Amino acid sequence: MLLPNIKHPKQLMNLSVNELEDLAVQIRNFLIEKLSVTGGHLAPNLGVVELTLALHYCFDSPRDKMIFDVGHQAYVHKILTGRMDQFDTLRKYKGLCGFVKRSESEHDVWEAGHSSTSLSAAMGMAMARDLKGENNRVIAMIGDGALTGGMAFEALNHIGHEQKKLIVILNDNEMSIAPNVGAMHNYLSKIRSDRFYLRAKDEVEMVLKKIPAIGGKLAKTAEKMKDSLKYMMVPGVLFEELGFTYLGPVDGHDLNKLIDTLNQADNVDGPVLVHAVTTKGKGYRPAESDSHKWHGVSTPYKIESGQMLKAVGNPMYTEVFGQTLIELGEQDKRIVAVTPAMPGGSGLIPFSKKFPDRMIDVGIAEQHAATLCAALAMEGMKPVFAVYSTFMQRAYDQIVHDICRHNANVMFAIDRAGFVGADGETHQGVYDVAFMRHIPNIVIMMPKDENELRHMMKTALDYNEGPIAYRYPRNNVRGVPMDTELVPIPIGTWEIVRPGEGYAILASGPMVQLAEETAEQLKREGISVEVVNARFIKPLDGEMLKNLAETGTSMLVLEEVSQAGSMGSAVLEYFAEQGIHDAVVSLMGIEDRFIEHGSIPQQREEVGLTLESVCQEIRKLKTARTAELGKRSFMS
Amino acid sequence: MLLPNIKHPKQLMNLSVNELEDLAVQIRNFLIEKLSVTGGHLAPNLGVVELTLALHYCFDSPRDKMIFDVGHQAYVHKILTGRMDQFDTLRKYKGLCGFVKRSESEHDVWEAGHSSTSLSAAMGMAMARDLKGENNRVIAMIGDGALTGGMAFEALNHIGHEQKKLIVILNDNEMSIAPNVGAMHNYLSKIRSDRFYLRAKDEVEMVLKKIPAIGGKLAKTAEKMKDSLKYMMVPGVLFEELGFTYLGPVDGHDLNKLIDTLNQADNVDGPVLVHAVTTKGKGYRPAESDSHKWHGVSTPYKIESGQMLKAVGNPMYTEVFGQTLIELGEQDKRIVAVTPAMPGGSGLIPFSKKFPDRMIDVGIAEQHAATLCAALAMEGMKPVFAVYSTFMQRAYDQIVHDICRHNANVMFAIDRAGFVGADGETHQGVYDVAFMRHIPNIVIMMPKDENELRHMMKTALDYNEGPIAYRYPRNNVRGVPMDTELVPIPIGTWEIVRPGEGYAILASGPMVQLAEETAEQLKREGISVEVVNARFIKPLDGEMLKNLAETGTSMLVLEEVSQAGSMGSAVLEYFAEQGIHDAVVSLMGIEDRFIEHGSIPQQREEVGLTLESVCQEIRKLKTARTAELGKRSFMS
Repeated sequence: MLLPNIKHPKQLMNLSVNELEDLAVQIRNFLIEKLSVTGGHLAPNLGVVELTLALHYCFDSPRDKMIFDVGHQAYVHKILTGRMDQFDTLRKYKGLCGFVKRSESEHDVWEAGHSSTSLSAAMGMAMARDLKGENNRVIAMIGDGALTGGMAFEALNHIGHEQKKLIVILNDNEMSIAPNVGAMHNYLSKIRSDRFYLRAKDEVEMVLKKIPAIGGKLAKTAEKMKDSLKYMMVPGVLFEELGFTYLGPVDGHDLNKLIDTLNQADNVDGPVLVHAVTTKGKGYRPAESDSHKWHGVSTPYKIESGQMLKAVGNPMYTEVFGQTLIELGEQDKRIVAVTPAMPGGSGLIPFSKKFPDRMIDVGIAEQHAATLCAALAMEGMKPVFAVYSTFMQRAYDQIVHDICRHNANVMFAIDRAGFVGADGETHQGVYDVAFMRHIPNIVIMMPKDENELRHMMKTALDYNEGPIAYRYPRNNVRGVPMDTELVPIPIGTWEIVRPGEGYAILASGPMVQLAEETAEQLKREGISVEVVNARFIKPLDGEMLKNLAETGTSMLVLEEVSQAGSMGSAVLEYFAEQGIHDAVVSLMGIEDRFIEHGSIPQQREEVGLTLESVCQEIRKLKTARTAELGKRSFMS
Repeated sequence: MLLPNIKHPKQLMNLSVNELEDLAVQIRNFLIEKLSVTGGHLAPNLGVVELTLALHYCFDSPRDKMIFDVGHQAYVHKILTGRMDQFDTLRKYKGLCGFVKRSESEHDVWEAGHSSTSLSAAMGMAMARDLKGENNRVIAMIGDGALTGGMAFEALNHIGHEQKKLIVILNDNEMSIAPNVGAMHNYLSKIRSDRFYLRAKDEVEMVLKKIPAIGGKLAKTAEKMKDSLKYMMVPGVLFEELGFTYLGPVDGHDLNKLIDTLNQADNVDGPVLVHAVTTKGKGYRPAESDSHKWHGVSTPYKIESGQMLKAVGNPMYTEVFGQTLIELGEQDKRIVAVTPAMPGGSGLIPFSKKFPDRMIDVGIAEQHAATLCAALAMEGMKPVFAVYSTFMQRAYDQIVHDICRHNANVMFAIDRAGFVGADGETHQGVYDVAFMRHIPNIVIMMPKDENELRHMMKTALDYNEGPIAYRYPRNNVRGVPMDTELVPIPIGTWEIVRPGEGYAILASGPMVQLAEETAEQLKREGISVEVVNARFIKPLDGEMLKNLAETGTSMLVLEEVSQAGSMGSAVLEYFAEQGIHDAVVSLMGIEDRFIEHGSIPQQREEVGLTLESVCQEIRKLKTARTAELGKRSFMS
């Protein structure tokens, strides 16, 4: 076994290509075995085994900067840079991160969980290199899916213009997470499938020679055409037009060819795009045949059969959303679903089968998706922008400028709201409340359970006064009884789910359950706590808030989002605006730092969103009240 | 005069092309004359006179949807749709909006102040049309500058794939606001300048016929080459590869050719891109010769000479920023300036002349700019991302994911923070505090005057612990004495600029001056007000806040940003987190709605950021305090 001896990528340089091929087999077996226990991004990593080997064989990390677009394709890189022993802890709390992580290794130079950032990063590193007068290489590896993200194009445009020396490796596996869409995809397919492109260039030269000289008035035209021809015979004309030298397509599993091409790329004095064609899931039959399913594996699986061990428990909120959208879609033809490359992850596959015309997958393109929704709404449709909280960040400007400013009837289905677990800090859905709450015209809701989610979807559908959002967690549902008839909830109304006196917890989403547990626990200590389902994050239920303040109730706002700028601060603002300066409000949310990977309960534990901490916070309010009352009675 | 009789675009259909040409002259004269008084986007609109005439001649607004990318190119459209009489009020308070405005006319179907949204809007409208079974046309007009924005590419990618019928008019005037950059620009230039492209297609056909049949082993290659040739002779292969039918380049000032081309486009059953070449400022010599200067004119000018009447008053904050950056740039080679197509607007022209290598204009590409900055910083540079507050919105995700999560030493120079005046609601810089404050690791400052701005720039340069931002208004400076030596301000410290007792106003930026005026005014009423320059918006000065609370001072947070989620709520959160529940804090900011165009003082007036309103708010605090004291003394 070669693999266990590889501790540094420099060691690869002493190996023959045959040995590298053996290594590739060993790496695949290692990944298939390890991930069968831990889960993880299996298919993408099986696809880049040879590419990553060739990179580390040809180039000199960490001197040369290797940038992985969406760092979940870096498992092989982690193996080759001394982290093989840590794979048992992959994506676990305090364990090996599922993405590139600078704190893990000097070979990790760029972290990314969101797609399409690698080209900008590479350009920045190349510009810094030149300004500093250094001469290291910069190599970015980007998937064909990530290439549809607008910022990747912004970077291509800049790189092609500036002509800095850097290498872009286009890892073309014919799909991003879902089957790829878009004109760029069609274009790449054409290159891949057109055998003509693969012919030897000298054949073209031979034909050119056979064309007789053409004189007279047409001479110049003929000349120009001859010139153009050679150029036309090169595939990747689109990239060439943008200022790149295009090399490829090259078989991304053929180490000899990859190494040749990378060396060739290295000799070009300007930006090069190497088009490598790979197979997602390569070398593991189950993953090759359904790379979509095997993109990110969250459960253990049987290696032989590829059978995934079904997670026990209730269905996910995502599924309830997907099913309910079909129900609503049957009743209302105006509903269209818009997804930025996440039809599966967003639970929209059943909807897309039922209503193929009303399902719009725009590729990795959140900005376009949001503005498209605005226009659809302004023309009378009822678009649902189904998006993960974390990826919605990329559409912030479009939400402000195109959706909310136009007051368009767009519905947002914000999935993965709150902690997301193993994907970690780049994927946490903990900012959407803070980045949406200050935008005029928008309504924001979060359900306490799956039954309420369904009513909220109906609420959103019936609401025709502007944008409205419902956010729900990456979690199994609570398993509550389900209403069949869906009834809209009056906008801006909260509900008391557990009466109490003296203290109240205002919570939304899964925090309602935690609040109920807290109330139950504190009841034993003689503290009566009211639990309010603050299901509208915007607008707040002003009547209820006023009433709580008037009755001298001490309040705790409990939410699984950044404490800064979220509902807690909205409550405080409300009282300040009303001139109610004696309301006692305490806040619990996520402190002002990024929270790393682990399970969702571990992440809650880390920031103190636990039964014990919430109880403690209420006890503190009680102590403060007792002290205050004592002070007052002393004063009187 | 034809022009005054045009009340509806339908009237154009009865005119001859000669009459349309006369109309073009009249429109130009009208614009040159009117804008010489009001100011406005002269050069862009002079460039699209024929284009807009041709659009309204060939198509049927409002049934056909005409979408203008960045609505400041819609003056001609406004003239042709019955709003000629309102041009005296252009960009004035309650007057004609400088951008497309739905509330003004049924012909205005899409509003935009930020660039690159039109293609997504067109696609949404085309999809809605098809879903509803209607058959109106959808036409988007986009500039070559706006085409560099990533979301435009996301839309191209989607449109090319879906093959919906719609027309994109590329208004190629060889520059956006500043001279254009980027590979796309180079590509368009090549098309424009290559006379070969303009030759008749049949000449190519003739040459092809002269090529003899080639048999044998090379037959297929030769055949394929012949096919490719025809295709290659079409310019715009890049757009063709993306699934568009490309028509052009066409002279954008030749009405006959424009009308022909638009009719041809209308006959294509799928997406078409019409490449029209125009001259910005066309027909007005001063504007043609310096279209950059004449892009947006903010002062009156003399029509004959083109002499702009210089605005009186102090220099702008922008200029102080630009000059100071040169000083710092001389001392520190690590400084690089990054601008998304705003070198002039951001005051960076002098810097770019002094340090051409350290000035990076990425085109309209805020996302790429932000991530580029992250990478530059991570490689040891000190990038300054110079950006308008409103355009920074488009980089929100990159600020979170690439800059703040990496804790990269990026400096943000946020210009046009607060109200921006005549550009109105799409351009207000009133959300950046709310959308940045909840992001971990970032420091946010705002200076009370130009002298402090300079110290803050030094503060940012010396700070090496992560991202740091300084925001400054679109305003003339106060004219205070300037220090020559720049001294960093300790992070998170506020200063008392006017001592007082009982009441304190915590303000930042221009609001500090308003607070001082308030204190002066209330002094006459016997109310003592302390004025705190809350120059760090994040982190807050906790010590000072605690002290204010302990001394029973009633506080008013005064800021020219959205009240929701900004510094006021940060102050409230701070007290809640500290368990200080008896602090009296009132908030004044911008209420939860979009504020339209007008002068900055008018906009402040509209939301109550005026001397009288602030005085009134303090008086209210006094009344509340008196009542509270009365209650307590009654209780005792």
